[in-house]
Amino acid sequence: MSGPIPVDNGGDAGNGLPKGSSRVQKSVQRGAVPTSSRSKLVTLFLVGLSFALVFNSEYDPLLACIGFSVLAYVITAALIPVLSPDFVRVGFVGRDLGKKHRPLIPETMGAVCAVVYLITLFFFIPFLFAKFFVTETSGSGNREHVLDTATLHKGRPLRMFPHSKLAEFLAALLSSFSMLVLGVADDLFDIRWRDKLLLPAIAVLPLILVYYVDFGVTLVAVPPVIWRLFNPGMVSNSAVPVVDLGVFYYIYMLAMAIFCPNSINILAGINGLEAGQSLIIAIFLLLNDAMYIVPGRILGLHPPHPATEAHLLSTYFVLPLIAVTAALLKYNWYPARVFVGDTYCYFAGMVFAQVGILGHFSKTLLLFLIPQIVNFIYSAPQLFKLVDCPRHRLPKLNTETGLLEPSRVYFDVPPRGAELLLLTSLGKLKLLDLERDPETHVIKSSSNFTIVNLVLTWAGPLREDTLAIVILGVQAGCCAVGLIARHTIAPAVFGRDNL
Amino acid sequence: MSGPIPVDNGGDAGNGLPKGSSRVQKSVQRGAVPTSSRSKLVTLFLVGLSFALVFNSEYDPLLACIGFSVLAYVITAALIPVLSPDFVRVGFVGRDLGKKHRPLIPETMGAVCAVVYLITLFFFIPFLFAKFFVTETSGSGNREHVLDTATLHKGRPLRMFPHSKLAEFLAALLSSFSMLVLGVADDLFDIRWRDKLLLPAIAVLPLILVYYVDFGVTLVAVPPVIWRLFNPGMVSNSAVPVVDLGVFYYIYMLAMAIFCPNSINILAGINGLEAGQSLIIAIFLLLNDAMYIVPGRILGLHPPHPATEAHLLSTYFVLPLIAVTAALLKYNWYPARVFVGDTYCYFAGMVFAQVGILGHFSKTLLLFLIPQIVNFIYSAPQLFKLVDCPRHRLPKLNTETGLLEPSRVYFDVPPRGAELLLLTSLGKLKLLDLERDPETHVIKSSSNFTIVNLVLTWAGPLREDTLAIVILGVQAGCCAVGLIARHTIAPAVFGRDNL
Repeated sequence: MSGPIPVDNGGDAGNGLPKGSSRVQKSVQRGAVPTSSRSKLVTLFLVGLSFALVFNSEYDPLLACIGFSVLAYVITAALIPVLSPDFVRVGFVGRDLGKKHRPLIPETMGAVCAVVYLITLFFFIPFLFAKFFVTETSGSGNREHVLDTATLHKGRPLRMFPHSKLAEFLAALLSSFSMLVLGVADDLFDIRWRDKLLLPAIAVLPLILVYYVDFGVTLVAVPPVIWRLFNPGMVSNSAVPVVDLGVFYYIYMLAMAIFCPNSINILAGINGLEAGQSLIIAIFLLLNDAMYIVPGRILGLHPPHPATEAHLLSTYFVLPLIAVTAALLKYNWYPARVFVGDTYCYFAGMVFAQVGILGHFSKTLLLFLIPQIVNFIYSAPQLFKLVDCPRHRLPKLNTETGLLEPSRVYFDVPPRGAELLLLTSLGKLKLLDLERDPETHVIKSSSNFTIVNLVLTWAGPLREDTLAIVILGVQAGCCAVGLIARHTIAPAVFGRDNL
Repeated sequence: MSGPIPVDNGGDAGNGLPKGSSRVQKSVQRGAVPTSSRSKLVTLFLVGLSFALVFNSEYDPLLACIGFSVLAYVITAALIPVLSPDFVRVGFVGRDLGKKHRPLIPETMGAVCAVVYLITLFFFIPFLFAKFFVTETSGSGNREHVLDTATLHKGRPLRMFPHSKLAEFLAALLSSFSMLVLGVADDLFDIRWRDKLLLPAIAVLPLILVYYVDFGVTLVAVPPVIWRLFNPGMVSNSAVPVVDLGVFYYIYMLAMAIFCPNSINILAGINGLEAGQSLIIAIFLLLNDAMYIVPGRILGLHPPHPATEAHLLSTYFVLPLIAVTAALLKYNWYPARVFVGDTYCYFAGMVFAQVGILGHFSKTLLLFLIPQIVNFIYSAPQLFKLVDCPRHRLPKLNTETGLLEPSRVYFDVPPRGAELLLLTSLGKLKLLDLERDPETHVIKSSSNFTIVNLVLTWAGPLREDTLAIVILGVQAGCCAVGLIARHTIAPAVFGRDNL
């Protein structure tokens, strides 16, 4: 499974390097550890386990989903090295600027993940609804009219086929598929910024329509303190005061669909960062789901929480994402043998958005995306051209030390007005590393506005994998604080926990 | 709208031809007709018309669909020339082997059609269900529980939101999206034959699941004559004898999903043929739909036919396909300025398959696909390697006459056994043009096994556009005969028409 990817040689050859250069040797060494037969055994075990889980005796969708996810991991991990040469051949290839010899490595491998993910969910759909096929229907004819009244009067619980659940599921898949197409198009054509913003909004349309049809809930809980502030003298008629956002709730969902994919796409640029942050966010989404599912449904401590179904649905989307992302990270971690591409970032981001929307826990999701939000706000001056934005903002390799240093934006014209004010303010807050002319004190250059560069400004030059670990550590820390806050502070502020 | 595509020059330049060669001049001449201001007016009129139709006062989905289709035509026709240079830049480019100078022209333009088609249907969904939003719901909350019992008792007709219809629609979109991804992957990577066969079967899974859930009808009408043959002495308990195919019906649907995309993809190779045949099939599907919809629903002659809903759904899928295909054909017709790519063939074929499946009229669809079926059977000896199959089987240009002649397969080893038997039999039936050694009478070469070559064998060398017109004429004739047979012979054989 973890043998060298054949394209490494091709990439380096195209790079004009002698074969057997340091990077290739390193990856050959990794593969040369006598793991080949052991990894085959592990693969066999995983495949067997996954089939056992998929075809569990109770047709429990949760077990089937775990099984399919294991299978998705195995398939993705096997496909990436096999397909890498083909991706290079057709031009999905990029230079790793963080390495001394700038090797060419395959790009857009997120497309493999996305395709495996979607096919996995295609096959999962029948298992999701298996109980309706097995217990409630006769095997043919219209499923809604199978139970005759005699059966009904005997008290057998009537469960109609949940078409609305199926529609939700299909709409979510449709949104993910749209993002896959958009991502591949972006990797191929380098789509313009304004289209990148517009297209996720189109991709999420089916999902929002289904949300409108199935839930139509545009109520948002507000802390009683704030509610009383805006409604003095009134008494809220529900336990938790709510505000109906109406059409603004739909605009908010559109904004989530635009924000999630793009925000992951701009917190990027070093090996393992895109897949790593997505993996951590997905794991915390899963933990959050587990807090609803485990006590009631699995341990049977109390009746299942009303939100259990929503969180189960979220689990079904998140588990396979964790699987394919883990497989991708295996090849994308330092030293990367493949790049994930915009495709992966868009895709993963859209899965988060759709889970947040369908599960009606987008505020919790935003807690997990704090690093992305901070990075977006911090990047905004460059994104919106208040400050000059170079083509690449990823950290610069110091070829002598082998360590990454913050990349810089150089000002040909001395900054003035709002730009100067912003630069000096952020400089004073130690949020930028400014270089000034020693005599005139005019700002000559500044570190770029990304938290990747900010970490390097604060911590000094780091090796690429150390830098990735630091940022992913921050991500995990933020997610952990977010999860705890969600279930401690939020209940206190809102007057109750919906757990 | 019909100006020259800038890439023509780039393509020819890459081809090593002097700029301003005959083909480029021709396309410039076509654009140079003083149509620019007239075509702008036409475009404006079409856009205005489409908006008027989309936002019709009754929110009639049929009118909205016509409006969206007009818009889809305008957008596709505008996008293809704009995006052509980008497609060439990233390598979606192919040589037109049917022209003297073999110009390079942009490939995979079907992807533009497919994306416009899918986005069009995304926007159409709310209109499809508008009447449920407007008349039956209060605007928020769960749509299924909005009507209280008081309202019910007043006799207001209760129409629950048709989640199952929405699920069907979404599943069909999902299948189309999968085929788009598969088609682009094939155009990029040249997928192997066996994978091409497998992948449409995966793409159609959501659709078949929805079919299972919503209809589950696996009954097929059989002619009474045949029914009595297999059930001697029994009396059929329904007006038309039916046979329950059970699981075989699902296998049949899978086979349709595999056959439709691939069969269109192999009846190809000359300008305008892929898009042309799809356009004709789509128009006849629309005519067939109209025979159910117009008398009952539009003219009000009698109560709407029970199958009206199914044929309306079919119309909503077919109309936008006609629109984007017409726009594509405009650029793909001889002399082609763009190629459609496998993407288009797969995509159009899958739309046909899904329409046939959801509308439960796959047998009628097969009547319209007779040229494809004949071509597939005729091609089978080469497809399954009984006879040698060269890489390209498209007709060969005679550069002196400027006419196309049948391409040939040459036998290094004289054919023997089954191969020889097949060749001589087909040769005697005038279904092949065989070349024999004048002395030994050993077969030296044969025309390739496609109906495109067969037409040339029969009719003699033809210009490329004449050949396309002949084959499309055959297609239209077969469809017309099929449509008439469907509503004359079929009722006679089955004992009734379901019209």
